[in-house]
Amino acid sequence: MLGGAAAVAAGATLVQCSGTARSAGTAGTGFGAATEPFFGPHQGGVATAPQAHALFVALDLVVPPGRNARETLAAVLKLWTTDAARLTQGRPAIADTEPELAGHPARLTVTVGLGPGVFDRVGLAQQRPPAVAGLPAFATDRLDPRWCGGDLLLQLCADDPMAIAHAARVLLKNVRTMTRQRWRQTGFRNAHGSQPAGQTMRNLMGQVDGTVNLREPHEFDRYVWDDGAQRPWFAGGTVAIIRRIRIELDTWDELDRRSKEFVVGRRLDNGAPLTGADEHDDPDFTAAVNGIPVIPPNSHIALARHRTDDERFLRRPYNYDDPPADGLTTDCGLLFVTYQRDPARQFVPVQQRLAEADALNPWVTTVGSATFAILPGVTSDAEYLGQRLLEGR
Amino acid sequence: MLGGAAAVAAGATLVQCSGTARSAGTAGTGFGAATEPFFGPHQGGVATAPQAHALFVALDLVVPPGRNARETLAAVLKLWTTDAARLTQGRPAIADTEPELAGHPARLTVTVGLGPGVFDRVGLAQQRPPAVAGLPAFATDRLDPRWCGGDLLLQLCADDPMAIAHAARVLLKNVRTMTRQRWRQTGFRNAHGSQPAGQTMRNLMGQVDGTVNLREPHEFDRYVWDDGAQRPWFAGGTVAIIRRIRIELDTWDELDRRSKEFVVGRRLDNGAPLTGADEHDDPDFTAAVNGIPVIPPNSHIALARHRTDDERFLRRPYNYDDPPADGLTTDCGLLFVTYQRDPARQFVPVQQRLAEADALNPWVTTVGSATFAILPGVTSDAEYLGQRLLEGR
Repeated sequence: MLGGAAAVAAGATLVQCSGTARSAGTAGTGFGAATEPFFGPHQGGVATAPQAHALFVALDLVVPPGRNARETLAAVLKLWTTDAARLTQGRPAIADTEPELAGHPARLTVTVGLGPGVFDRVGLAQQRPPAVAGLPAFATDRLDPRWCGGDLLLQLCADDPMAIAHAARVLLKNVRTMTRQRWRQTGFRNAHGSQPAGQTMRNLMGQVDGTVNLREPHEFDRYVWDDGAQRPWFAGGTVAIIRRIRIELDTWDELDRRSKEFVVGRRLDNGAPLTGADEHDDPDFTAAVNGIPVIPPNSHIALARHRTDDERFLRRPYNYDDPPADGLTTDCGLLFVTYQRDPARQFVPVQQRLAEADALNPWVTTVGSATFAILPGVTSDAEYLGQRLLEGR
Repeated sequence: MLGGAAAVAAGATLVQCSGTARSAGTAGTGFGAATEPFFGPHQGGVATAPQAHALFVALDLVVPPGRNARETLAAVLKLWTTDAARLTQGRPAIADTEPELAGHPARLTVTVGLGPGVFDRVGLAQQRPPAVAGLPAFATDRLDPRWCGGDLLLQLCADDPMAIAHAARVLLKNVRTMTRQRWRQTGFRNAHGSQPAGQTMRNLMGQVDGTVNLREPHEFDRYVWDDGAQRPWFAGGTVAIIRRIRIELDTWDELDRRSKEFVVGRRLDNGAPLTGADEHDDPDFTAAVNGIPVIPPNSHIALARHRTDDERFLRRPYNYDDPPADGLTTDCGLLFVTYQRDPARQFVPVQQRLAEADALNPWVTTVGSATFAILPGVTSDAEYLGQRLLEGR
């Protein structure tokens, strides 16, 4: 599958609002009051059970006259930390001009990242984690600069699009003299509560998407969270890759169901591998009938599957459906968002395999790509995101 | 306020799925299975309690070689009727290539309309309801052609954006050789279940928006549904106006709260008129302190309020928040959607007043406008939307 629904901690969502514990149930107040924790060793929005809506904004740093790049970046990160700590807990931002919109965070998370190039810009090239770098070119990529790169990432996720719109407004407005928006991508999954809990999402090709994923805390420690061995300031951070994958639905729709299932290696109705009956059955890539593999070796799941213990990462994708260019019917696809300690070791080998041979390639086109260092979390309001990087502590 | 949350029939949502009555509760199955009726004297999506998400697509008719405009329009309407009858009830469309995406309609409604110009194009100018016409120019409009007009309207509303994406794909793909998409606008309100039921929505200015609205069936008969007196085929239809109103948040945010409340005539915290304590208290426009009106006479509510019994209509707005143009912070606002029998009598006098004097004008700019005849409903699958118009019965 293209991506995955991390059901991490779904049963253990911490519910707080304005310091008072509240029920996340829908009876009476609605789930708008539910919150995710802000303070901790990691930022929210990574291991957080995926919210229904997401907004990804990439920004470039614009250094105002009389300031230097590093203090500009610090100013951005301080403003974002202060207001994210409040908005995620259902409290208005400092100087929030629409405070009434802040009261229903609906599990809002704010996740901040730095692009590979910004370390140089702020004179801290030697502090860039080696894992934070551009990806190699893949043969099947058709990258459009309008969906690529960026000095800063602001990732907002919530179960209510109103919470995202308000948080985006506040956080982007605060930094408008110090940044320029480079790109902005909106994604969605099934609405909160529309499906039984724990169900894997479908993408807009109709496929169950994200059966294979990281779920256990020890997997996150092994594959997602940086341990600080190379850059101590980065302990607790991770590396995000955001790929915009357009689905060529016009031609995909010409395929019959059986062919679609062979392309992917899973059944369309329930997502089971072609060798199994249930979605979570392990695919048997050795199974063959009359010498012909049941799951084709170039099917998407055969190639996307990790082949070494290293090739695992967190998939946290969202669907997108945007207005098409003139004369076209549809512009939809997947914001394929992954988090891993080291893309070169975990993500690139898989993507290389897919680019070379994935049977799905004729129907998916990667048109955007960006990499960001997701900053470690902050543990109290005495600290701001990125402080350990910028102040060397 | 700019618009309104019609709580019409909120307590009486008919829940059906594949012909089997089901609970709309979130326990177990999720609300994705909930449906709104398709067959009836009126199309859904007007009196329907507003769903959380909406997509409005305007299309122009493209007549393929060897066909005429009227049979092309009939072909479009037949395809849409057949598939809308199925998709709204949670059943895959005919030849649905992603049938698994059809099973969770989440109260999907499909609402089809015809622009004023298309009656001419299909040789039925004399059948155009007189109420279906372009609006006069308003002094404050700054209309951008990219958000204006259209031969056909396809309005999709649901509580789950996945249901809308799938329905849009199916319905637009089916007619791609006979239409060209002219514009496409996506809107949202608070997510289903995030707030207590029956709460009036807020817009992205932070205002409670839509306190005054039509709610009773007799009000719909009087103000919304056409009675067929002028054009018998149109009985049960209505006229939709879709105005794209950009909010100038950068300058709005410079106002202090008290000034904002004077501009609107309501309190920001709970939406109560400045002469009242609760949202639904009747504003007292005669109240004055030391000779100064408590609610300024040019405040938004003083001017938007109906002054004659005619000036009432259904408000069913959605918020939008789109990527801003280069260098800007925000592009957000309201898709102000209204339904009425006769815009000239009901809508235009109010809009004229607002354009002349509304204290809110410096902070809102109408950049798009379109009018559509919302077709009467169909009562069985022997009929297609618009058949009475196109076949004279």
